[in-house]
Amino acid sequence: MTIHTLNTGIDTIWVVLTAAMIILMEGGFALLEAGFVRHKNNVNIIMKVFADITIGTLCFYLLGFGLMYGKDALGLFGTNGFMIKGDLSHLDFLISTDTFWLFQAAFVIAVISIVSGAVAERINFRAYILYAVLMTIFIYPVAGHWVWGGGWLGKLGMQDFAGSGVIHALGGFSALAASMFIGPRKGKFTSKGISTVSLPSNLPLASVGAFLLWFGWFGFNAGSTLSATDVRIGHIAVVTMLSAASGGATAMLFTLFRYKRSDAPSVINGSLAGLVGITAGCAFVSDSSAILIGVVSGLVMLLATHWLEIKQIDDPVGAFPVHAASGIWGTIAVGLFATDNGLFTTGSWHLLGVQLLGLLVLCTWGFVLTWLGLKLIQLWIPVRSTEEEEEVGLDISYHGMVAAFQEQEFIKYESNYFHYKED
Amino acid sequence: MTIHTLNTGIDTIWVVLTAAMIILMEGGFALLEAGFVRHKNNVNIIMKVFADITIGTLCFYLLGFGLMYGKDALGLFGTNGFMIKGDLSHLDFLISTDTFWLFQAAFVIAVISIVSGAVAERINFRAYILYAVLMTIFIYPVAGHWVWGGGWLGKLGMQDFAGSGVIHALGGFSALAASMFIGPRKGKFTSKGISTVSLPSNLPLASVGAFLLWFGWFGFNAGSTLSATDVRIGHIAVVTMLSAASGGATAMLFTLFRYKRSDAPSVINGSLAGLVGITAGCAFVSDSSAILIGVVSGLVMLLATHWLEIKQIDDPVGAFPVHAASGIWGTIAVGLFATDNGLFTTGSWHLLGVQLLGLLVLCTWGFVLTWLGLKLIQLWIPVRSTEEEEEVGLDISYHGMVAAFQEQEFIKYESNYFHYKED
Amino acid sequence: MTIHTLNTGIDTIWVVLTAAMIILMEGGFALLEAGFVRHKNNVNIIMKVFADITIGTLCFYLLGFGLMYGKDALGLFGTNGFMIKGDLSHLDFLISTDTFWLFQAAFVIAVISIVSGAVAERINFRAYILYAVLMTIFIYPVAGHWVWGGGWLGKLGMQDFAGSGVIHALGGFSALAASMFIGPRKGKFTSKGISTVSLPSNLPLASVGAFLLWFGWFGFNAGSTLSATDVRIGHIAVVTMLSAASGGATAMLFTLFRYKRSDAPSVINGSLAGLVGITAGCAFVSDSSAILIGVVSGLVMLLATHWLEIKQIDDPVGAFPVHAASGIWGTIAVGLFATDNGLFTTGSWHLLGVQLLGLLVLCTWGFVLTWLGLKLIQLWIPVRSTEEEEEVGLDISYHGMVAAFQEQEFIKYESNYFHYKED
Repeated sequence: MTIHTLNTGIDTIWVVLTAAMIILMEGGFALLEAGFVRHKNNVNIIMKVFADITIGTLCFYLLGFGLMYGKDALGLFGTNGFMIKGDLSHLDFLISTDTFWLFQAAFVIAVISIVSGAVAERINFRAYILYAVLMTIFIYPVAGHWVWGGGWLGKLGMQDFAGSGVIHALGGFSALAASMFIGPRKGKFTSKGISTVSLPSNLPLASVGAFLLWFGWFGFNAGSTLSATDVRIGHIAVVTMLSAASGGATAMLFTLFRYKRSDAPSVINGSLAGLVGITAGCAFVSDSSAILIGVVSGLVMLLATHWLEIKQIDDPVGAFPVHAASGIWGTIAVGLFATDNGLFTTGSWHLLGVQLLGLLVLCTWGFVLTWLGLKLIQLWIPVRSTEEEEEVGLDISYHGMVAAFQEQEFIKYESNYFHYKED
Repeated sequence: MTIHTLNTGIDTIWVVLTAAMIILMEGGFALLEAGFVRHKNNVNIIMKVFADITIGTLCFYLLGFGLMYGKDALGLFGTNGFMIKGDLSHLDFLISTDTFWLFQAAFVIAVISIVSGAVAERINFRAYILYAVLMTIFIYPVAGHWVWGGGWLGKLGMQDFAGSGVIHALGGFSALAASMFIGPRKGKFTSKGISTVSLPSNLPLASVGAFLLWFGWFGFNAGSTLSATDVRIGHIAVVTMLSAASGGATAMLFTLFRYKRSDAPSVINGSLAGLVGITAGCAFVSDSSAILIGVVSGLVMLLATHWLEIKQIDDPVGAFPVHAASGIWGTIAVGLFATDNGLFTTGSWHLLGVQLLGLLVLCTWGFVLTWLGLKLIQLWIPVRSTEEEEEVGLDISYHGMVAAFQEQEFIKYESNYFHYKED
Repeated sequence: MTIHTLNTGIDTIWVVLTAAMIILMEGGFALLEAGFVRHKNNVNIIMKVFADITIGTLCFYLLGFGLMYGKDALGLFGTNGFMIKGDLSHLDFLISTDTFWLFQAAFVIAVISIVSGAVAERINFRAYILYAVLMTIFIYPVAGHWVWGGGWLGKLGMQDFAGSGVIHALGGFSALAASMFIGPRKGKFTSKGISTVSLPSNLPLASVGAFLLWFGWFGFNAGSTLSATDVRIGHIAVVTMLSAASGGATAMLFTLFRYKRSDAPSVINGSLAGLVGITAGCAFVSDSSAILIGVVSGLVMLLATHWLEIKQIDDPVGAFPVHAASGIWGTIAVGLFATDNGLFTTGSWHLLGVQLLGLLVLCTWGFVLTWLGLKLIQLWIPVRSTEEEEEVGLDISYHGMVAAFQEQEFIKYESNYFHYKED
């Protein structure tokens, strides 16, 4: 046994374990979103996450990974490494290339799952699958290449440790575009422009999701070191915890004092906003900066939620407020608080400028490509569910099933498969 | 600090962490099964899994482990090591023997939990406990010895890395025997031989289970190296992910195109089938073989589900299709695709022959011993619930409780314990 | 790469991963408690756990950690290290001080979450937040200092590896005090002194919680080594499993034979009792002692549950039976069974005496400080919910929301936030 072998081993188990934690976050997304939407669409939103994790993984294997991490061409995209094949010696890690792929695959399915929440309760399931393909083979991998794969934004010096920008701001702006493209749920805004609400169908279920996401986030941020001997791991985990706590506490106290009740979805989303906000800077900022980042993340999440209502944009689970708003703030915060080169810590404006440029590019890319992608899909399949499908609920419309079925008797078996339809 | 000490430490935490992940899979089994069965039997099926994890663990500690991993006698069973005592120097690992025991205990409770799903909604709870004892002290340990404990199948060269055969095919055929022995649920098949269905009582709950299983499976497969410096760990995790994704995607797209709706239980079971299918070969096959294994796993699972309906065998959660059908396929697939000695990769038939022989033995052993065991238990306790118990639901019959209770008032306390009974 | 760097790396990932597992236990507490209480208080109890994890973490960061682990003064409390700053060189670990903080933060939020269950369904939410502050900045940190932070109980030789006493007995007695201070839920005991029950609102949800707790406990106990090369890790995990299994099996079989039904909440709490009981001794006792500890833990939990009913103390989720009763037993058990200095193993009474003294101090401290703390809070805010709030349910009263909402239509948006109130 040599030190090198041991070192490779420890790095490998670190990345495999943290990748598994991130993959468990898909369960977090599914249950959080299912708990937040109306009962009649619970199954559908879980199935969308299954589409992300199954079809998304395969797409990223076939095409996305190569575009993202293949040999760089012009700073714009990767050119080899499809199916993890070919000369990838420029990826210089102790861990094997396929272990690296697994970690990155866990990331891409998180991005697409961000969008799944924003289009909840009204997207055609086949159209969603096509969009998921587009996101995992092209939209995210190309943008990811720019920052992390050797592309031009990374070369400019953009710092986004685990993806407040690349994952969350991009995912959140894609969610915004999809939500605007598809329009609000029927009945969400009245003809007089008054917003209505649907209460979460299942808060405990949403909480299961939130706890799984919180747990997985330690893998997300600390695992992004890709090496178990990176001395920053402990600090990364600590600031992740502090920012999450700060985001949640802010939402809890703000809604308690402002509205006389601690609003549960806000508390959950506040914690998640704190997690999103610290994702870019977890390796670069101090404890106290992390607390500040978390507090502001909670606030911008609340503000963005309010802004969406005013603008009559319907985002049933708050994907844009949590991921885009806090993600943008988190990416900017690196430019402000990074120990080595932040504006407030060193007086230098350079990093902040690069971060802002990067955000502009990532958000625009996510928004525009998603809009164009949905336009393209629209040519073939209606992107929006029919009125009847939406009315009946997507669970019965697309999956022939209801989420919770209390009836104790058997029903007649009509064919090979369950074809339950309410009369 | 020496390299040896470090190496022992890293191996130990690897095995402890992955064992904990596998133990969490019990939660996965419990919730998946609870979500799939009718509401009135939710508590009971969770309690069966608690029987597995509590009583099963103790039985394996007292007797099973010794029979499985004690010093080999005639290639048939182990002869010492009961209560992890005695000379176990033939188990030559860096990790301690009791750490090794923990990992194996996590396996045995998975096997018995496979059976728990197939007999759902109609087995007598006491009879189930007795069967769980039998499985964990004898049926599984002896068969496990043959392949993994120094027994004759292992000596013949059978390759089953983490148990598509030993765990899943054996567990699945035990489930089949138990399901046939006990007969279908009342009302499942009409007098005219038409199959009826009960919809899953709680799809989101089943999904929680599925995500926990998926997460735990990384521990199951990659942890089976029992050493953190095994160079195959990364690859094992990667093919596990690819096969799961392929199985789920196959079921999603197949049911979408064949039945015009993506059937949620099929998608969940398809993903699990992909995981079962890759379990034997995860250390031996390539990425592209893994994808093929996953696709076929999803299909054989769907086929086997259909076959059970035709044969009027009632397996409420699909234990046989997921575990036996895909487990058999996965074990055969090693014989076809193993990089070093598979038929398609090297042209040699030898391994394939051994795998088929091993499967024949394991499936027969599981089926026959389960049947005989239930016969034996029947002499003492009726294995099947009474009609009334089944009608009322096993939750009230065996646990005096209902799964979800919305009534907000207190009810009179009749005795020491909750004795709720619907009038 | 040096051995030292590797060693630091492996210790760091071990502590970070196990800390994440313990933090996931908060999800376990939240869901277990939500499943056990009445439906109308599900959201509130989850929000209390969110208060623990968000506000508790920040309080422990600001003040608690320094009081607990700062430089010792007179054996009574720590004097520096607030916000993890200052000279903490007396904390001599390979892992960084902030990594150590993260692990300890995961502990403190567990303590306060123990109390949250006992005061379920009737505590004023703002009062609870204030109490959580008090617990995490003062009550627990000071007592923790005595045993683990260099204080007088530790110097006397008290042995409590992962906290049967410091965490569970203290938390459990704090829960008892809070429960007595606040009084029983309206309707729980009739005017004739007869106890009534409310059935768990959601057993499957409680089970999700139980499985997450079980999983996290491996992190709790084994992670308490704070070093991945500690040779006891494997053994700790093994006895943790054995004791949990024994506690659960005991409750399952006892209620089966005594009441003719395996009582599901008892089985769940029995498993947790087994986990609590082994927490002090996991590094010090043998396998067979662990089984005995688990069995007795299950029994004392059942006894204490009964005792509370007789005394008309209302502890809706069994916090006192699970944590205090089994925690006391577990701490005593170290004095009886510790391999090196237990009474039964070596004939020496010394350790047992120290353990008893320590328990007396910890339980009294938890009880008295909680009582005084609530008295203090009472001066400002009523600790108990109003009758109307309790009647309507704390979910609507404090969070304007119900846990599960099946209504499919939108409701009018009255203001910025969800203000749902049943008419």
